Amino acid sequence: MATFNITPINKDITAALQHKIDNKTKPLGALGLLENIALQIGCIQQTLTPVLRQPNIVVFAGDHGIAKEGVSPFPQEVTYQMVFNFLQGGAGINVFTRQNGMQIRVVDAGVNFDFNQHPGLIHAKVGMGTKSYLHEPAMTQVQCAEAMEKGAAIVREIHQEGCNVIGFGEMGISNTSAAAIIMSLLGDIPLEQCIGRGTGLDDEGLTKKKAILAEAIARHKPIDKTPINVLSTFGGFEIAMMCGAMLQAAASGMIILVDGFISTAALLTASKINEHILDYCIFTHQSNERGHHLMLSHLKAVPLLHLGMRLGEGTGAAVAYPIILSAVTFLNEMASFESAGVSNKVEA
Amino acid sequence: MATFNITPINKDITAALQHKIDNKTKPLGALGLLENIALQIGCIQQTLTPVLRQPNIVVFAGDHGIAKEGVSPFPQEVTYQMVFNFLQGGAGINVFTRQNGMQIRVVDAGVNFDFNQHPGLIHAKVGMGTKSYLHEPAMTQVQCAEAMEKGAAIVREIHQEGCNVIGFGEMGISNTSAAAIIMSLLGDIPLEQCIGRGTGLDDEGLTKKKAILAEAIARHKPIDKTPINVLSTFGGFEIAMMCGAMLQAAASGMIILVDGFISTAALLTASKINEHILDYCIFTHQSNERGHHLMLSHLKAVPLLHLGMRLGEGTGAAVAYPIILSAVTFLNEMASFESAGVSNKVEA
Repeated sequence: MATFNITPINKDITAALQHKIDNKTKPLGALGLLENIALQIGCIQQTLTPVLRQPNIVVFAGDHGIAKEGVSPFPQEVTYQMVFNFLQGGAGINVFTRQNGMQIRVVDAGVNFDFNQHPGLIHAKVGMGTKSYLHEPAMTQVQCAEAMEKGAAIVREIHQEGCNVIGFGEMGISNTSAAAIIMSLLGDIPLEQCIGRGTGLDDEGLTKKKAILAEAIARHKPIDKTPINVLSTFGGFEIAMMCGAMLQAAASGMIILVDGFISTAALLTASKINEHILDYCIFTHQSNERGHHLMLSHLKAVPLLHLGMRLGEGTGAAVAYPIILSAVTFLNEMASFESAGVSNKVEA
Repeated sequence: MATFNITPINKDITAALQHKIDNKTKPLGALGLLENIALQIGCIQQTLTPVLRQPNIVVFAGDHGIAKEGVSPFPQEVTYQMVFNFLQGGAGINVFTRQNGMQIRVVDAGVNFDFNQHPGLIHAKVGMGTKSYLHEPAMTQVQCAEAMEKGAAIVREIHQEGCNVIGFGEMGISNTSAAAIIMSLLGDIPLEQCIGRGTGLDDEGLTKKKAILAEAIARHKPIDKTPINVLSTFGGFEIAMMCGAMLQAAASGMIILVDGFISTAALLTASKINEHILDYCIFTHQSNERGHHLMLSHLKAVPLLHLGMRLGEGTGAAVAYPIILSAVTFLNEMASFESAGVSNKVEA
């Protein structure tokens, strides 16, 4: 496997950043989480005047063998149909990236459909969907490494174009199942608490999903809980590719916008490979998918938005982007007490 | 007092809007609060294709006699100094409105400073700050009506220019004190629960603030709890002007972006004058000022953002604006299952 050399963030600049933030014309701490984000981005970029350049969202699509076992109310065909929707600009993520001036890239990580050569689609297919992990490992470790390396290569190219802030989204019918198992095994959280309704299972469907996933885990016991093994056995090509992409983004010093349940499972995996990746992550929202808040807690993450969204595709990251830009903008553009001639707090 | 003729929203279009939302290429309900906002704005504008035009933030500034009693760690001069900061473009609200393509207007509602004729400032001064309600009513009812009418006139003009979405901010040293008393009296909430640290009081300062405000209320007992009397006795010129402005915005069919603690107190007052105003309100964020969440609960309001902000000026509304735009944009631009050729959920 490729190694990812991620530099832990040098925090020496923290005091200077905090001083700048505290001298803006506002009460101490009055911009709440925006101040935390400004501080983090200043640290990542090692400057008092950070800049967000060419924001990108990369959407990885992949199919899952487990979809045939009845864990989702949507048929597997929706994955490729949604890829066409992305390419035609009609999906949620298209709408939100357009609105917020972000570039979108769509990647075939392993959809069970032959797209031929489609302009606008990044062809990085590892296979025609994974195997059903109810019966066998979803992918081989060689495929897993291939997916991760392809994700990393895509990010390297985007970084070379000048981008320094990147979010990751996904599309893959049944991928909340894969994410739930990854969360349970790598986060050491009871499976029951990791499984939610996904795209909208009813009570009966949810019960069935829980039974199938419990059986799937039992099938593979004893499980070697290394991140690569868990990812290979239960993951999706899009999750593995996102994991590699995230590790490369951190290695390139980029800001990573973490989206919802599946994105966070990819990040959880990445963080078990190299924990320093967390220094580079902004957690953009808390998904309404059951278990996401637990996964965020496990990562000690404070999400920016709580809008009850659960669409995937990177939509939480795209919707949150203007808030992140607000953090950078206030740090760069707000006047200080001194420059504006405003009296500061009277100290007792 | 001027009467405000606010039309309750006709909800007949709800089913058609909900049908449009539910047929977008996403699981049912997957955009969470964005769907609620889209529905509300569609209802306000009585259309399936709403548009946000010329978004404005109006910042009302006013001084408070109570400031001299020691309820804030900042001196009263900060109010006029911050007005200059607004006019020079250096305050938080300038930064965020610029970022998000919103127009900002700054209004002298009653600052204790003579600005002469300053271009860029709307001169609507009702007085050189209010009286201290520790000793006498903050303003006369005639002044209160004048402030409300001036606020309404400003909004009428902005509406005539073509604006249909408007947020309101404020600046006034000690105005969390006025807002806390208004919240307590009109929301029937114990005063203790309404008082917070404002711009950053320490424990000792907070104790003193609580004692002073309790004494102020006792001074005026028995209190006629009509909104106009409460507003006149304890309010600020900027709060009264905002109250009139909000009522006019609803009467003009505009979307109202409600900001933080003081804005919500103005809205609470307005809602006691005409409850239909609530149909037009989007609650943009929950402030970190103690008591704001209780005031929101009293209004049955679900705030969009929880960023721990407490700056005032309308900054919560400005930072949240792109999210509101996202709600309108997905409603207008996202593909439907049919138009995108995507299979919908398989019904059991």
